[in-house]
Amino acid sequence: MRILFIGDIVGRPGRQALRQHLDSLVDTHLVDMVVANGENAAGGFGLTHEISRELFDLGVQVITTGNHIWDKKESLDSLLAEERILRPANYPEGVAGRGAKVYSSPGGVRLGVINLEGRVFMANLDCPFRVADRLVEELRRHTPLILVDFHAEATSEKIALGHYLAGRVSAVFGTHTHVQTADERILAGGTAFITDVGMTGSQDSVIGIRKEIAIEKFLKQVPMRFEIAKKDPVLSAVLLDIDEDSGRAHSIERVFLRC
Amino acid sequence: MRILFIGDIVGRPGRQALRQHLDSLVDTHLVDMVVANGENAAGGFGLTHEISRELFDLGVQVITTGNHIWDKKESLDSLLAEERILRPANYPEGVAGRGAKVYSSPGGVRLGVINLEGRVFMANLDCPFRVADRLVEELRRHTPLILVDFHAEATSEKIALGHYLAGRVSAVFGTHTHVQTADERILAGGTAFITDVGMTGSQDSVIGIRKEIAIEKFLKQVPMRFEIAKKDPVLSAVLLDIDEDSGRAHSIERVFLRC
Amino acid sequence: MRILFIGDIVGRPGRQALRQHLDSLVDTHLVDMVVANGENAAGGFGLTHEISRELFDLGVQVITTGNHIWDKKESLDSLLAEERILRPANYPEGVAGRGAKVYSSPGGVRLGVINLEGRVFMANLDCPFRVADRLVEELRRHTPLILVDFHAEATSEKIALGHYLAGRVSAVFGTHTHVQTADERILAGGTAFITDVGMTGSQDSVIGIRKEIAIEKFLKQVPMRFEIAKKDPVLSAVLLDIDEDSGRAHSIERVFLRC
Amino acid sequence: MRILFIGDIVGRPGRQALRQHLDSLVDTHLVDMVVANGENAAGGFGLTHEISRELFDLGVQVITTGNHIWDKKESLDSLLAEERILRPANYPEGVAGRGAKVYSSPGGVRLGVINLEGRVFMANLDCPFRVADRLVEELRRHTPLILVDFHAEATSEKIALGHYLAGRVSAVFGTHTHVQTADERILAGGTAFITDVGMTGSQDSVIGIRKEIAIEKFLKQVPMRFEIAKKDPVLSAVLLDIDEDSGRAHSIERVFLRC
Ligand SMILES: [Fe+2]
Ligand SMILES: [Fe+2]
Ligand SMILES: [Fe+2]
Ligand SMILES: [Fe+2]
Ligand SMILES: [Fe+2]
Ligand SMILES: [Fe+2]
Ligand SMILES: [Fe+2]
Ligand SMILES: [Fe+2]
Repeated sequence: MRILFIGDIVGRPGRQALRQHLDSLVDTHLVDMVVANGENAAGGFGLTHEISRELFDLGVQVITTGNHIWDKKESLDSLLAEERILRPANYPEGVAGRGAKVYSSPGGVRLGVINLEGRVFMANLDCPFRVADRLVEELRRHTPLILVDFHAEATSEKIALGHYLAGRVSAVFGTHTHVQTADERILAGGTAFITDVGMTGSQDSVIGIRKEIAIEKFLKQVPMRFEIAKKDPVLSAVLLDIDEDSGRAHSIERVFLRC
Repeated sequence: MRILFIGDIVGRPGRQALRQHLDSLVDTHLVDMVVANGENAAGGFGLTHEISRELFDLGVQVITTGNHIWDKKESLDSLLAEERILRPANYPEGVAGRGAKVYSSPGGVRLGVINLEGRVFMANLDCPFRVADRLVEELRRHTPLILVDFHAEATSEKIALGHYLAGRVSAVFGTHTHVQTADERILAGGTAFITDVGMTGSQDSVIGIRKEIAIEKFLKQVPMRFEIAKKDPVLSAVLLDIDEDSGRAHSIERVFLRC
Repeated sequence: MRILFIGDIVGRPGRQALRQHLDSLVDTHLVDMVVANGENAAGGFGLTHEISRELFDLGVQVITTGNHIWDKKESLDSLLAEERILRPANYPEGVAGRGAKVYSSPGGVRLGVINLEGRVFMANLDCPFRVADRLVEELRRHTPLILVDFHAEATSEKIALGHYLAGRVSAVFGTHTHVQTADERILAGGTAFITDVGMTGSQDSVIGIRKEIAIEKFLKQVPMRFEIAKKDPVLSAVLLDIDEDSGRAHSIERVFLRC
Repeated sequence: MRILFIGDIVGRPGRQALRQHLDSLVDTHLVDMVVANGENAAGGFGLTHEISRELFDLGVQVITTGNHIWDKKESLDSLLAEERILRPANYPEGVAGRGAKVYSSPGGVRLGVINLEGRVFMANLDCPFRVADRLVEELRRHTPLILVDFHAEATSEKIALGHYLAGRVSAVFGTHTHVQTADERILAGGTAFITDVGMTGSQDSVIGIRKEIAIEKFLKQVPMRFEIAKKDPVLSAVLLDIDEDSGRAHSIERVFLRC
């Protein structure tokens, strides 16, 4: 089974990069399923019904998210009731939405997707390692093909979770930093890993934000109204091949495309 | 002028990777100067006289550092009196050592090196953007060839400093996260940039630390005595070509070598 | 000279407590000047022209602030152009407003007021200790009576600044945590000190916020729209006596009044 | 039932203050049980067998702790096997020690003690609110008299937990900031509360540390070897009266004594 996993889509330029490249990527590489992190898809901050429909229409089958999913307050409950949208599973009990689910590819292969969020330099969530233990066990009853989007800041936490789940899931892909790392590899036991898949949005920016504003923020240390940048949209992703019987990853390949 | 910049050297496996690869890298690529981040060179934590001599003997001409330079308490003053060792320039007045200096290559070309440390998720230092303004102006009186090692955690702060200094320095190279990023490029005005050069140490680890201990730390949230990992040493670096008249970067190329 | 310093005024309940108690406090204790921290005076978040006029009309002569001063975006420049409003002095150069000034009491005694913000668990500002050095020296050319509002989170940073400035200023008063501490005292050299003056607002709350919402935030770890609480308004303050010739504090006394 | 709860004992000066005042406090106020936070009792950092024996000999019946309990690595497992020593209950499963227990006073009254640690600006622990829910339910099967030591940094988190447990426990006492707050009160439902009980150690210091070193740390932002201060030892505590039938608090009174 071949999966295309797309890193944090940031606003209109991110969706534009998707529109330009997704179909041909899927055709060329015979992609079975497309999973994308959409936490910044709506204007850089969060997700809406409308934008999620746009992503689904473009060919995304599952949308994972992260800390920014809470940015758009309106109708978050109904948005997260959508089965194809995940939010990090390690938010505490009682929070809207779900963090893991088994999906079926058009060809009928079952893929479990788990979305987790890091705690280092981030929110006080439940332990992603222990929540992963529980969810992996649950999903493995249905399928050995499991993909984890670990939305986290610190390289140490991401790599540690990769090793922790090595041999138990097909892939651990990091998101959140908006910069693609060059450390993709197959860990022991057949788990594909990359510290961060990178951003799908304007590269001539500071992680998607207009660079003049971001610089001003660092110089002045007062809150700023961020605007997303528009120039030089790029698509950052990884291509993953999984053995359908064992769930082991055969290969992981970085994708980085300009418009 | 061609410069090889080596990412955070972690303990003995990092020095081993250097010993195995440095000479041939320098010969093959006609490298004029070797700069390396040595903040973790001594057992993973800090730097000593002995280890710095070892790095110089192996062919490193300038050692930059970061937050871990303070880990080894003994003789830090005399260590930082060594002109070829820099610590981040934006530590406050009165702190031992220097953060920027103009060096000469064996061929007589002058290269300014500036070491800075980020503040996001790190210490309460002076503003790296404003300290950079002052140091760049000073160094440019002596040479237009200036390399900045920005030792920082957050991708946003690193990319913002890249854009901020674009056109004023030859290169802004990130260090500290121990994971090489895939976003090397030449910014406007001829400034080479990469968010993180990556680590020179054991890759079968959590950023250089034995993975079992790192995982235990995340699971238990109590302090642990870290040990550096030994297996699978790698060298992470970038090769930088600078125009000697203008100081503009011609090219930046990632280097990643196993042992 | 007798000064009444009022801790963080939070929204309407805080202003109500002021209205009820300020005149009689000033009359009873023969207060010469009233200084108040107003960073939360407008609906709990920031300050406006209208609210600052209300505070001045109620008898406040100088308004200090803190991290929340930036919450209300509109007309911040003109607000901070008002000479009787201070924002922390250790924001970087180029930020609107001022952080220190010499004021005159109705009786013609000059009082220097310095507003600083901590860095521990807060923003990446300039060093409050070093900025204090510079400002204290400047203000002492005009008067030995100097009051410092140190708006900070960590007890260690606040107490350290108290000792650091002991003998050089009349008082170091902490604000920001919204809880009055019981450690008021006169440090060496005649500097009055308290770690936190406390809040002027609804006590039946979580630091001024409706307790149900604050608890929900801790339980769910997702962003919430905070509302200020209304019940049980209290006024928290300190009364300070300064020797007009030497600037030394004679006494510091806590004030805590219900409505 | 009358309980004396003593705030963080810091090193030898803290133990000295205890030796000087504890017996007479117990006698004068007819105290039934003495509970003390001992996380800094051994040289300012952690606890040892020897020091815990000293505290028990002085009249402490139960020792609660906090983040510093892990500072002394040696024999932590056997130390935490001691039933009269608690560590915060919301450390994850698998960590040595226990976080709650029912004790009996010499007069045979049962008192449940729960130790929790905050997460704001602290470690990534399990949710103290939800762990409290579980433990309160367990302990209430044995006794309605329950005392919570909430070792936390942020006033908001401490006050929120106070309101959250109001009516379910006899008292929520904050520790960790080493500064006594002046907000002791009885919350709805008969729960005594104070944001922080304060420190038992040298007051002429920065939260127990020699002030010159603490100031140097803030000025230089490099790691320092802290030493505890010796001058001006104080004892900070609260006296709590609980109704033995209902578990409701009758009164809470601050104690602050110099040597
Ligand atoms: Fe993102
Ligand atoms: Fe994110
Ligand atoms: Fe490093
Ligand atoms: Fe570092
Ligand atoms: Fe405030
Ligand atoms: Fe504040
Ligand atoms: Fe403590
Ligand atoms: Fe503590």
